[in-house]
Amino acid sequence: MCGPEVISLIVPVSVPERVLAADLASAVPSSRVRLSGWVHRRRDLSAVTFLIVRDRSGLAQVVLEPDAARQLDVAEEWVVDVTGTATPNPVAPGGVELTDPGVTVLSAPTESPTLELWRPTLKASLPVLLDQAPLAWRHPRQRALWQLSAAALRGFRSTLDGLGFTEIQTPKIVANATESGANVFQLGYFGQPAYLAQSPQFYKQQLVGVFERVYETGPVFRAEPSDTVRHLAEYVSLDAELGFIRDHRDVLAVLRETIAGMLDAVRGSRAAELLGLDVPTIPEEVPTIHFADALRLVGAPADEPDLAPEHERTLGAWALREHGSDFVAVEGYPMRKRPFYTHPQPDDPRWSNSFDLLFRGMELVTGGQRLHRYADYVDALRARGESPDAYATYLQAFADGMPPHGGFAIGLERFTARLTETDNVRRVALYPRDLHRVTP
Amino acid sequence: MCGPEVISLIVPVSVPERVLAADLASAVPSSRVRLSGWVHRRRDLSAVTFLIVRDRSGLAQVVLEPDAARQLDVAEEWVVDVTGTATPNPVAPGGVELTDPGVTVLSAPTESPTLELWRPTLKASLPVLLDQAPLAWRHPRQRALWQLSAAALRGFRSTLDGLGFTEIQTPKIVANATESGANVFQLGYFGQPAYLAQSPQFYKQQLVGVFERVYETGPVFRAEPSDTVRHLAEYVSLDAELGFIRDHRDVLAVLRETIAGMLDAVRGSRAAELLGLDVPTIPEEVPTIHFADALRLVGAPADEPDLAPEHERTLGAWALREHGSDFVAVEGYPMRKRPFYTHPQPDDPRWSNSFDLLFRGMELVTGGQRLHRYADYVDALRARGESPDAYATYLQAFADGMPPHGGFAIGLERFTARLTETDNVRRVALYPRDLHRVTP
Repeated sequence: MCGPEVISLIVPVSVPERVLAADLASAVPSSRVRLSGWVHRRRDLSAVTFLIVRDRSGLAQVVLEPDAARQLDVAEEWVVDVTGTATPNPVAPGGVELTDPGVTVLSAPTESPTLELWRPTLKASLPVLLDQAPLAWRHPRQRALWQLSAAALRGFRSTLDGLGFTEIQTPKIVANATESGANVFQLGYFGQPAYLAQSPQFYKQQLVGVFERVYETGPVFRAEPSDTVRHLAEYVSLDAELGFIRDHRDVLAVLRETIAGMLDAVRGSRAAELLGLDVPTIPEEVPTIHFADALRLVGAPADEPDLAPEHERTLGAWALREHGSDFVAVEGYPMRKRPFYTHPQPDDPRWSNSFDLLFRGMELVTGGQRLHRYADYVDALRARGESPDAYATYLQAFADGMPPHGGFAIGLERFTARLTETDNVRRVALYPRDLHRVTP
Repeated sequence: MCGPEVISLIVPVSVPERVLAADLASAVPSSRVRLSGWVHRRRDLSAVTFLIVRDRSGLAQVVLEPDAARQLDVAEEWVVDVTGTATPNPVAPGGVELTDPGVTVLSAPTESPTLELWRPTLKASLPVLLDQAPLAWRHPRQRALWQLSAAALRGFRSTLDGLGFTEIQTPKIVANATESGANVFQLGYFGQPAYLAQSPQFYKQQLVGVFERVYETGPVFRAEPSDTVRHLAEYVSLDAELGFIRDHRDVLAVLRETIAGMLDAVRGSRAAELLGLDVPTIPEEVPTIHFADALRLVGAPADEPDLAPEHERTLGAWALREHGSDFVAVEGYPMRKRPFYTHPQPDDPRWSNSFDLLFRGMELVTGGQRLHRYADYVDALRARGESPDAYATYLQAFADGMPPHGGFAIGLERFTARLTETDNVRRVALYPRDLHRVTP
């Protein structure tokens, strides 16, 4: 038999001379280097042909003489290796271009792409973009939108890791609807019905009993029958929950640090630079207003049970004007509009120890303190006409002894949409799912 | 109206004097400090009472005089704040205990816990542990098992972040079964059928066309009718995919770095220390053997289409004996046993450019090079009697131009199970899902 082969893994993935487009500027002048990527644009002028090559880092310019260009059968979205001489040229992107190139075709599209990715912005309508998501995301500005989300995810996790949180991964297939029977997807589970989790709420609370401080980043599922610009049937929820708090203000303090970490990660990203994004800061002291005061401030009747979108916009404008803040927290939402596990405000049980954080006048985060005593859960459920028995496995964690705790959930797509002032969350979800869409 | 309140968030979550059990050793002797946590064990001796307090960091000892103990109505799993004097005692855990304590009860269990968490190891049977997962995970050794997984997740991401990968989040609700119609969960999606994704395979490949290098950590769903110690109906998959490779060996090189990063993160964790875990290393040069040679080595017939579990164990023992490695890669698996998107071995198309990585004699990772040309996909599907039309949205990415690429998927639960030499993946999943279990 052949002997087993021990492979050397010292050589990295690419042969040494591959450079990324973004690093071409620092290549040694006159050295031979290799770019790998897609032909983003081919421009045949009378005296010269330009190939703009796109890779994961950005764009680079390749210059071909007419003879070489005539023999070169490549066009937009062809995948190529280009070996050439790094040549300073002040008018080239990054100040360096590739001259005297040899081009190797790695693969060719079957036809011209249906979107003109080389244009500064994509012109197609939203449904067209969503139908062709894998192609549309190749556009540098489009791609940068998701890279903001990826940076935000990194900032979320690193902040909470630094605060002693443990990452958890909880099941998405559950035996019961999380918070209500409505808006839940049902599936067949080995011959019995089961559901897709609307949130990790119950699990993250139980796991406060184990790790004290937990977070999860993952999909949640809402069978939202409404077709709005801010709802998705599946979205990425950034959840955190922590024990040994005094009240919801401790939760808000951790939320503030977390958002600051997300914004810092975005601010340091190449994507933010490419988009020319002016990344806001979250103040050390977040303006915080009680729900009852918020109603007065926006001129709504005192018995309104919730804030309407126009109320949120008014509050956002007020926070910016009065406090120079893109963020404002509204605390004390009426108990009757919050889930049964919400902790009441100790001095007035009409109100709750919960909050929403608005980002530029739109709800980004919901959070608050939860009940932590078993008897309080039983009372709260009965008061709403629900049977504690239906929640037996969840309530067991409280029967086993739980500290005062609370948490929050940030919608990733909403975060990026607000950050980039995008009109529709579908534009920042890689493959959005809604009432009408389950493909691609 | 009341003015809005600007809250100061300078004060961190806990009042300053809270110390974690693990940090008690470094408290200033004779200073007053506060522990918060669960009563892990109460031991009433004739002359003294010990409370062992458990928090997220570990255990600490509190000493009560008989009079104080008599008045203190707390027992196992009560949640308490304990303020006391940090007192050096060489025989206490960490060398410091709390004396002269004041105890505040934050909440009390409704009854004695049904598991004796204070015992060095949990004695209950697996079904009992799984039924009471939120309680069982409170046990320090149990909890440490998940903390290994959390560390591995962190190592996975940080390694790939450092290699220029972009994190993605792809939909779990899909219009078609990913790789075959079998073993897929079906759900009702606004009046039409949809499915739970068996893997992010199709999406991560498409997104190589956008980001070149992508990874995802998230749930995957397999309606596995088999009831084995290594299968779950929902598990955490660590997926990566990268473009501009030469062949599967480039993928294996990135996998090797990734596993090394995961092991490093685990090695540096408090959980590994608590468990006394001897964390292995993955060699710079992973022993790699061709499938055909592997069959000969284990004494199996040359026409065997796959490796049986006992073959994997033999290969694992061989790698350890001959190469001192806990890891061995088997490359070249027969094409007929691999999915249609697998790239054949260029010099002999019976074999594939794919691999499995075995960890201590069990498959941990499957990976390899994929087809990247549209025409090759059409041929591969037709050769298997499948219609390319059924894969139209997936294949469009290849029609639009894709580089040579490949990737891998690591099962998180399998990783931790192998690392800790645990007999059943259910023991390391927070809330396992299988043929018989969809709760808690």
